[in-house]
Amino acid sequence: MKIDSVDFFYLALPEIQNIGDGSQDSLLVRVTADGHVGWGESEAAPLVSIANWCHPMSHSACKPMRDTVLGQTLDDPADIDRITVAVQADGLDTAQTDHTFSGVEIAMWDLLGRKLEEPAYRLLGYDRAYPKTPYASMLFGDTPQETLEGGKRARAEGYRAAKFGWGPYGRGTVEEDRDHVYAAREGLGAEGILLVDAGTVWVDDVALAKPRLAALQETDATWLEEPFIGQALTAYRDIAAISGSVKLAGGEGAKSFYEAQHLIDYGNIGFVQIDTGRIGGLAPSKQVADYAVAKDITFVNHTFTTQIALSASLQPFAGLEHHTLCEFPVQASEMAVALTGGATVPRDANGDVLVPDAPGIGMEPDLAAVKPYLQDVQIRVNDEEIYRSSTIS
Amino acid sequence: MKIDSVDFFYLALPEIQNIGDGSQDSLLVRVTADGHVGWGESEAAPLVSIANWCHPMSHSACKPMRDTVLGQTLDDPADIDRITVAVQADGLDTAQTDHTFSGVEIAMWDLLGRKLEEPAYRLLGYDRAYPKTPYASMLFGDTPQETLEGGKRARAEGYRAAKFGWGPYGRGTVEEDRDHVYAAREGLGAEGILLVDAGTVWVDDVALAKPRLAALQETDATWLEEPFIGQALTAYRDIAAISGSVKLAGGEGAKSFYEAQHLIDYGNIGFVQIDTGRIGGLAPSKQVADYAVAKDITFVNHTFTTQIALSASLQPFAGLEHHTLCEFPVQASEMAVALTGGATVPRDANGDVLVPDAPGIGMEPDLAAVKPYLQDVQIRVNDEEIYRSSTIS
Repeated sequence: MKIDSVDFFYLALPEIQNIGDGSQDSLLVRVTADGHVGWGESEAAPLVSIANWCHPMSHSACKPMRDTVLGQTLDDPADIDRITVAVQADGLDTAQTDHTFSGVEIAMWDLLGRKLEEPAYRLLGYDRAYPKTPYASMLFGDTPQETLEGGKRARAEGYRAAKFGWGPYGRGTVEEDRDHVYAAREGLGAEGILLVDAGTVWVDDVALAKPRLAALQETDATWLEEPFIGQALTAYRDIAAISGSVKLAGGEGAKSFYEAQHLIDYGNIGFVQIDTGRIGGLAPSKQVADYAVAKDITFVNHTFTTQIALSASLQPFAGLEHHTLCEFPVQASEMAVALTGGATVPRDANGDVLVPDAPGIGMEPDLAAVKPYLQDVQIRVNDEEIYRSSTIS
Repeated sequence: MKIDSVDFFYLALPEIQNIGDGSQDSLLVRVTADGHVGWGESEAAPLVSIANWCHPMSHSACKPMRDTVLGQTLDDPADIDRITVAVQADGLDTAQTDHTFSGVEIAMWDLLGRKLEEPAYRLLGYDRAYPKTPYASMLFGDTPQETLEGGKRARAEGYRAAKFGWGPYGRGTVEEDRDHVYAAREGLGAEGILLVDAGTVWVDDVALAKPRLAALQETDATWLEEPFIGQALTAYRDIAAISGSVKLAGGEGAKSFYEAQHLIDYGNIGFVQIDTGRIGGLAPSKQVADYAVAKDITFVNHTFTTQIALSASLQPFAGLEHHTLCEFPVQASEMAVALTGGATVPRDANGDVLVPDAPGIGMEPDLAAVKPYLQDVQIRVNDEEIYRSSTIS
């Protein structure tokens, strides 16, 4: 097969709020080859990635991605590997490259899986998929009372694990943070798996993170996620050395296998969280999963957007029986819900998430349902239209 | 002062060739505040950075940069620091953020320097600037004979150091590479400082780099630059352990202080090469220079574009007397030359480069001269024009 077309569908709510909710927009990617179709999704800043796809060449290591991808042969996983190497070389000097490519790469796996009638996780080398325990991923409330209610809601909905993140956490006093963490634990109940996400709020300042550890230890939190930006390896290492029962989690911002590897090797994280929509797609995520196994730490998906993104993010660690936690977006926007026509990744009687036993990534977009959210993008350079968004008929 | 406007001027040759020459286009940035003006330059993929500047918000950690920068107070270096922290938080999930911000940040230093009548290096904390020994930066020839001629030309033009990079190097046999390196040494003469740039050609494969070391050692090369991509820290470390007299150089792709720090701490490089147009501007570059001093390795600028970029790139290590090498672009395009109306960073009788003793970054663009190269960019989303390039009157 030859890659005939790649279309980006930039979807967005009519109004984007200034909150940490990544499901407010989406960059859906469709790849076609010889009549076969595959779907993927890149995370965040759709217009920046669209520009990365179509921009005029700067020099030999800074080319528009479409010149590298279109027309390529796509018959088996080795082709995806070859195309990836070419994209990384041709986009070396464009920082956005891996973000942009993620959706394209996922769509290539999806297409190949559909063609070969195999789930993507099999093409990645797993024999079977194991159920995952979803954790409800939500924002901290504006008040501890709201956080408490969030925890109760998650519990009432049957979640055995929940993550609270962003919002006021880390921005006020140590005491205020303590109140939120205790409220989360109370809402979730003593048995629930409690996860806390600091959303990089302390940047690289170990002294700010340190006094927050006690409340996390007292409430038996399983992890403290992203106390720092992902590049602050020394800060991660310093907190990991004193965090005791609370492990560090990080890696969602990783834009390559290497960045995740550095957090594992030099930051001493206990959970590596990979967003297939940022790191470059399924193959580099699987490479991180293999590395996590080798280093005896735990792989977790990072997903706070759609069910297509969720299903993609499950494939790289589907076959790891003991890596059981799975981020499950519970506050997805109406647009994110519409994207799959309300369909979700299946769950068993126990509430566990099942990786779809279907070809490719196993989820399909409902284009008609998201048509109202489609953003029409037009880019002109010197009166020449170099990009115009695809339409939904 | 308040930042009133930020303009991006996307300049490009009429035809961009598929070669490793980064001077074929440029993203010139102008910042104004209360009637004062400053200039900077971001490296590569201008349209991607323009999209980063103006894109619709995705969520709270993925905002258009203009929303964060415009209207900010700019009175002293602490303001630049504060604006940088805000830009990084608001652009956390956009991989292109530091590339884009580089030109804006440099322009803020330039503006502040002009206002305070101080060179940027003084605002960065240096008392004085020391001369730098320029190395002629050129591509390997297609044949060893062409490489030889390049070396001779550099020598005839008075360069005491030259770097040969990209082209065929690393893509053919070990023997072919040896011929090129010997040709470079012959052309440059026995006394010249010989530098070799592999342009990340071996990605992360130590086995491919290893057999090339002998020719570099035999010809007394000072450094081997970028045998691998900047994230392949383990590969850098492994080659550094056996490279003997030839030190590793790297860091040009660093998109933050941290990435440079990791190459120093974990990759064991001997020369850290920083592009102020990529890393986020002058302040993170100065931070790397301080770190290089602390770790007893050498800071070098990375510049393969214009004289404005060159002057900016000198500021962060201007005051380091013993960090003497300086990349000096000798094959700049006609557009890059025109950008400063043919003006270059000054040199002394010895041929050494002098950091301009002038306010800000000390170089000024000749807008009239580059008007023919100005690219007119228009971006529309849902029939609303969200971006239109500034014109040159």
